[in-house]
Amino acid sequence: MKAVCLLSGGLDSSTCLGVARREGFECYALSFDYGQRHRIELQAAARIAGHFKVREHRVVRIDLRAFGGSALTADIDVPKDSLKHDGTQGIPITYVPARNTIFLSYAMAWAEVLECSDIFIGVNAIDYSGYPDCRPEFIAAFEHMANLATKAGVEGRTLLRIHTPLSKLGKADIVKLAAEVGVDLGLTHSCYDPDQEGRPCGHCDSCLLRLKGFKEAGIRDPLPYL
Amino acid sequence: MKAVCLLSGGLDSSTCLGVARREGFECYALSFDYGQRHRIELQAAARIAGHFKVREHRVVRIDLRAFGGSALTADIDVPKDSLKHDGTQGIPITYVPARNTIFLSYAMAWAEVLECSDIFIGVNAIDYSGYPDCRPEFIAAFEHMANLATKAGVEGRTLLRIHTPLSKLGKADIVKLAAEVGVDLGLTHSCYDPDQEGRPCGHCDSCLLRLKGFKEAGIRDPLPYL
Repeated sequence: MKAVCLLSGGLDSSTCLGVARREGFECYALSFDYGQRHRIELQAAARIAGHFKVREHRVVRIDLRAFGGSALTADIDVPKDSLKHDGTQGIPITYVPARNTIFLSYAMAWAEVLECSDIFIGVNAIDYSGYPDCRPEFIAAFEHMANLATKAGVEGRTLLRIHTPLSKLGKADIVKLAAEVGVDLGLTHSCYDPDQEGRPCGHCDSCLLRLKGFKEAGIRDPLPYL
Repeated sequence: MKAVCLLSGGLDSSTCLGVARREGFECYALSFDYGQRHRIELQAAARIAGHFKVREHRVVRIDLRAFGGSALTADIDVPKDSLKHDGTQGIPITYVPARNTIFLSYAMAWAEVLECSDIFIGVNAIDYSGYPDCRPEFIAAFEHMANLATKAGVEGRTLLRIHTPLSKLGKADIVKLAAEVGVDLGLTHSCYDPDQEGRPCGHCDSCLLRLKGFKEAGIRDPLPYL
């Protein structure tokens, strides 16, 4: 059975890919070069794709910078040392408008061409609850829409299913699951603002959240923080 | 009031933009360079955008060829002289997987950055009923999903509305409406397989459908057919 797996190269998407592999799917990894400031994550994605021996890894270049509106794609400072990912402080500035909608739309296109009906995405509704497009109700609505949008859906063939195995897990549980499904944690990249060599800053939202997760899981993060 | 208007440069999207203008919207036109064989339509889009004095016209380059699967983006012959657009013969080979989903996702991203809540798309459920992503139930599902995906939706601000003024119109009615809202019909481009100078072939699905519409509307098509 084939599955399209969205892969950013971060801890979550890498774990999600590991889960898909463990469930026996033949994986097609899909990454995006969207003008993200932390493009080093694409190298991490390639390493993880190789590590899990995916059937194919495609990197699609898309232009989210065309619209701006986020610290991850526009010239807005990435916030430091103030964890804004916990959902109590509204939607963070690192939110990229329509990002997951666009990513899932491409995944859906590839799934349709591959004649595959499973998509994996490592969204998380706990730690990323400030991002509207990480919530289960969004995923359910996307799945419903996708099944009306595609040839397979209309012709009554296998319906598209969007798997979100990390949706209800806290970061510590994701770290444990990552270890369990065989993610090489040293290959993943989470930092929004790494240095030239790709070393994580240790101070952006994403680093703080990751470090907290490792600490709570009692596992040492192998990354070379600055 | 701002609106993002998807504009391919074809008769339908141009008419749709004309309708948005007539309704008093300040229009932001959005076109895609998606490796379509009939890229000449992007020049038509620019001419129409100028004709209707849109506030801004952006062309986003996206890579639908990455996945293939359609006569419009892959090396598959465009069917000639056999109108397959009428929905009685299944989904045509010119269907591009997930195209409208991807286009609407980008429109949604731009709308979010512009803080605008109206999107216009010239889909048609009559003549293009073979395309799953032109149907009203798809548009409704997309609208629902979009309102769960965005910051504005989550924060309870104005909800996104997707306008499809051509949805229920036959081609002849669209030709009449185009004339009514002031579309310069000679600027539009519909052919899937034009020659080097952009002259329409007169034999592909899109040309046949257009010619039929003009004939039924009793209006002369000013395009220089081959």
